[in-house]
Amino acid sequence: MSERIKMILDCDTGHDDAIALMLAASNPKIDLLGVTVVAGNQVLKKTLVNTLNVCQRLGLDVPVYSGMPLPMVREQVVARTIHGETGLDGPVFGELHLKPQPQNAVDYLIETFRNSDGDITLVPTGPLTNVAVALRMAPDIAPKIKRIVLMGGAYGIGNITPAAEFNIYADPEAASVVFRSGIPITMMGLDLTNQTICTMDIIERMEAIGNEAGKLFGEIMRFTYVTQKKYNDLDGGPVHDVTCVAWLIDPSIFYTKDMFVEVDIEHGPSYGRTVCDYIGNTGKTPNATVGTGLDLPRFWDMLEASLRSMK
Amino acid sequence: MSERIKMILDCDTGHDDAIALMLAASNPKIDLLGVTVVAGNQVLKKTLVNTLNVCQRLGLDVPVYSGMPLPMVREQVVARTIHGETGLDGPVFGELHLKPQPQNAVDYLIETFRNSDGDITLVPTGPLTNVAVALRMAPDIAPKIKRIVLMGGAYGIGNITPAAEFNIYADPEAASVVFRSGIPITMMGLDLTNQTICTMDIIERMEAIGNEAGKLFGEIMRFTYVTQKKYNDLDGGPVHDVTCVAWLIDPSIFYTKDMFVEVDIEHGPSYGRTVCDYIGNTGKTPNATVGTGLDLPRFWDMLEASLRSMK
Amino acid sequence: MSERIKMILDCDTGHDDAIALMLAASNPKIDLLGVTVVAGNQVLKKTLVNTLNVCQRLGLDVPVYSGMPLPMVREQVVARTIHGETGLDGPVFGELHLKPQPQNAVDYLIETFRNSDGDITLVPTGPLTNVAVALRMAPDIAPKIKRIVLMGGAYGIGNITPAAEFNIYADPEAASVVFRSGIPITMMGLDLTNQTICTMDIIERMEAIGNEAGKLFGEIMRFTYVTQKKYNDLDGGPVHDVTCVAWLIDPSIFYTKDMFVEVDIEHGPSYGRTVCDYIGNTGKTPNATVGTGLDLPRFWDMLEASLRSMK
Amino acid sequence: MSERIKMILDCDTGHDDAIALMLAASNPKIDLLGVTVVAGNQVLKKTLVNTLNVCQRLGLDVPVYSGMPLPMVREQVVARTIHGETGLDGPVFGELHLKPQPQNAVDYLIETFRNSDGDITLVPTGPLTNVAVALRMAPDIAPKIKRIVLMGGAYGIGNITPAAEFNIYADPEAASVVFRSGIPITMMGLDLTNQTICTMDIIERMEAIGNEAGKLFGEIMRFTYVTQKKYNDLDGGPVHDVTCVAWLIDPSIFYTKDMFVEVDIEHGPSYGRTVCDYIGNTGKTPNATVGTGLDLPRFWDMLEASLRSMK
Repeated sequence: MSERIKMILDCDTGHDDAIALMLAASNPKIDLLGVTVVAGNQVLKKTLVNTLNVCQRLGLDVPVYSGMPLPMVREQVVARTIHGETGLDGPVFGELHLKPQPQNAVDYLIETFRNSDGDITLVPTGPLTNVAVALRMAPDIAPKIKRIVLMGGAYGIGNITPAAEFNIYADPEAASVVFRSGIPITMMGLDLTNQTICTMDIIERMEAIGNEAGKLFGEIMRFTYVTQKKYNDLDGGPVHDVTCVAWLIDPSIFYTKDMFVEVDIEHGPSYGRTVCDYIGNTGKTPNATVGTGLDLPRFWDMLEASLRSMK
Repeated sequence: MSERIKMILDCDTGHDDAIALMLAASNPKIDLLGVTVVAGNQVLKKTLVNTLNVCQRLGLDVPVYSGMPLPMVREQVVARTIHGETGLDGPVFGELHLKPQPQNAVDYLIETFRNSDGDITLVPTGPLTNVAVALRMAPDIAPKIKRIVLMGGAYGIGNITPAAEFNIYADPEAASVVFRSGIPITMMGLDLTNQTICTMDIIERMEAIGNEAGKLFGEIMRFTYVTQKKYNDLDGGPVHDVTCVAWLIDPSIFYTKDMFVEVDIEHGPSYGRTVCDYIGNTGKTPNATVGTGLDLPRFWDMLEASLRSMK
Repeated sequence: MSERIKMILDCDTGHDDAIALMLAASNPKIDLLGVTVVAGNQVLKKTLVNTLNVCQRLGLDVPVYSGMPLPMVREQVVARTIHGETGLDGPVFGELHLKPQPQNAVDYLIETFRNSDGDITLVPTGPLTNVAVALRMAPDIAPKIKRIVLMGGAYGIGNITPAAEFNIYADPEAASVVFRSGIPITMMGLDLTNQTICTMDIIERMEAIGNEAGKLFGEIMRFTYVTQKKYNDLDGGPVHDVTCVAWLIDPSIFYTKDMFVEVDIEHGPSYGRTVCDYIGNTGKTPNATVGTGLDLPRFWDMLEASLRSMK
Repeated sequence: MSERIKMILDCDTGHDDAIALMLAASNPKIDLLGVTVVAGNQVLKKTLVNTLNVCQRLGLDVPVYSGMPLPMVREQVVARTIHGETGLDGPVFGELHLKPQPQNAVDYLIETFRNSDGDITLVPTGPLTNVAVALRMAPDIAPKIKRIVLMGGAYGIGNITPAAEFNIYADPEAASVVFRSGIPITMMGLDLTNQTICTMDIIERMEAIGNEAGKLFGEIMRFTYVTQKKYNDLDGGPVHDVTCVAWLIDPSIFYTKDMFVEVDIEHGPSYGRTVCDYIGNTGKTPNATVGTGLDLPRFWDMLEASLRSMK
């Protein structure tokens, strides 16, 4: 077997973050080194508990690090509507015994990349606060980060505002730092991720696996199914964050386009927008490979096979 | 026959502006009261000459007024690439004898709307400078303007920048004034107008009419065909501005969606973007009916029938 | 006698505007060609009436033109606190018979400067809306304007906000157009004008002249005296606008410094600030002669002598 | 003797930072717990070396921590003109043996304030990056910081731009975080600090002390004397940063005024300005005690007495 892909997941768990974590922890091609947690879908205290709950319930053997509780500059916003009061409403977890590592997520990121051979990919599925603070605190790690595969942004319509997607809007200044960093970036924005609607037949198919992973998938996505029906009139919720891990495992499932992406940090109606040079009229060199479409059946197949391999 | 629709065309002629003028001047449902000219695709001196040239060549009996030579606040930008050095490169015109009216376009707009019964529609197909200055100079005319049907903006990708469409970008502050005016607005943005590619078969079909209008159409659109091939790799140029007049004649040809639209006048990468609340997440009352699609065959049929009726 | 200085006053009368008008109309060195009115201290309807009232009461033989009722882009703000409900609370005027000219102020400015020999100075003492619209509508007049001597801005503390002075804040975009126009500018900002406190002894001295001008001066400045005492704890009100006319008559009374001035049109806490390069660290060529101090006794002497010459 | 004032110095040494460090380390009223270093006057590598050099030469027994090498969001700017290539040109230091602590400055700040009784004052004399990152990483420390006494900003003219003072301009977003933190702030801006010109007689007076501290003072301020003469035509350099420590030792030497201060983080000509509500027209509750003046003889007396007490 070929060498596994080393990755760190940086997340604000979150329904789709939880599925992304399950995929990263179970897929044989991925070597999940650690999970860093950031505030986003909910406040840090909650996203940390959610992450630990998923790890404990599925018996994942991966260190979890707590990171930034607030965005770099702006006032905090959370996504209460979509993810509920806990940030991961739906599933019921037992008493939590798992503990995060004593080291701060930012310090962990700096130390790990600094000591690496430049072969680790960073997968942020929440606001980019941990990543940006690490980059500003230790700019020497930038050339050691193999690639950043992030969920966030849109070249089309936003979701939290008409212009902006939630993860970027929750910390536009951090996102601006990341997109200006020179690190190779894969951006899975709403244009792509909104195509990953998890319909009831997918939910039932994952539940039919019969293991704890399938069961947890069902609990998570049935909650999302209801909220997306209610707020967005969709036949299920997109599993946004999962696309980042899936692209890392098998990019051939995805259509992408290289673009120059700039984060709007002016305080007008486009605050937090990823301005994507789709047609190339800025003349600037692309700094991101942006997802535009995917082969949905192969995507679900990969996810099912991975979950099936879990205990 | 039912009463004709009174309209004023406010344009920066321009290839597609010229076709819009031909449609407005020829369609029996339209009563074209006057044409006001603004800087945009080229400097005012040139857009005025282009407008007069089209009128003279086709023998149009409509008064032409010269308006604002500069945007309200920003430095001037023109669209030399697409429209060439004259702003209407391609067709050859004879010596120009036709003269503009002595009155300024802004004064004409104010006087005309002030003295109207509120039954005149304003159709701007260039930057919104004339309109905005009139509205700020004489705010009492706002309730007398039946509707503004404008070409400009996009809820998707821009053309002059990744975020902005040319007409809005050329005077974002003016556009902001117009969208905040409370006047009913129909916005034909790139999302719709980019669908109106004038392919070679359409060009040949219009030329086949055999009259001067068809001939001029061919001269104009063959030039556009070449530039669009060269710069945008398209099989012909969109006739953006024509959609405004077509919607006014028969809105049943178009798909639209009501949205709240705000013009970004911050000076970042989204300067001049029409931020369109497509999915309604601002909670703000829509201020614009935005074009999303059209029945293209019926659109070309309407245009052909109108041109055919010309001398 | 040497040739008189041709000037046009552009004002939003206002208490200090009224005194500036009196000085311009009475001083033998000034040839006051016309008065254009703009919204500012109050809405246009009121600033127009105030201007006409002053002209009628003092029998001034000067044409008055009504101009822009709204700022170019922003929402309107007025200075109700300082100038009261009429915009010139305090004096009592008889029934108004005087009428404004039929021509719009903007058209008057354009026509007058276009037909001039480049020997007319423009003195705006309100928001710069009339001036900026004229410059954008007819950029060819810029080289025909000898100089703009304006009241507005500050390199120190603002008055309407911590950053901005009222006249500039009321239309920052217009001010930006003017300061970027290339026309020679003298800027009398708060740094200078706040030094012109009209204390009670000055009021009594002007009243002691005994004519209608002195009487009106008293009525105006006694009202200002009370409001400035109340709101700003000052021993009288500054006669800001008067400094512009006084500088034009005798610049030797004033200390000035050449600076590069840029108007902040971002929408943050400095919106409407005149950012003045006092110490020259931008390296940009000065575009304004900015007032820094004055010989106050000579200033009042000049004013008294001028008022005394009135009927 | 009354209890000493616990303080942490956060600096970007720098000429005046060095003097501030000398005052803090020598004055009997101050208990200097630690020194954290940030990029500012020069890049971090240099400001760290400068700090260690001063500590080693004067035998200061205080732990030094290295912090943020880059501002939070913006591109880095340094003050090469004023502080030279090393950031502390002028004095000559021996081979450096002193080492910084292994802990990062941000972690040290968080740990120290978290474990404190809320009795430690933080004195930042450089860009506010270390402080802001600590506050965003550990918002729970905000109520444990007794007060922040910072050098930065201006309500008058800036120095790096017409609007902005260098420390704030070097990281406006960090400064914005600090001024919005709710922590009691004393701001020593240019309005005050520019009054502390260190003329040649002061330099000679400190040198006359005859100890190593006086000697180092002379080497530092003679360099500043020359650069300020050259670039700003001043008779000596202001010792900006020293005022913070001096105020902490004896606030009775200073005149101050409570104001609401907001940092401008728009990207226009006022980027990095501390917009200070000097006259109270925002109606917002003051968040800072701002220095306006000082008793200069007492200030130099305090400094001399402190330096004299050093070895």
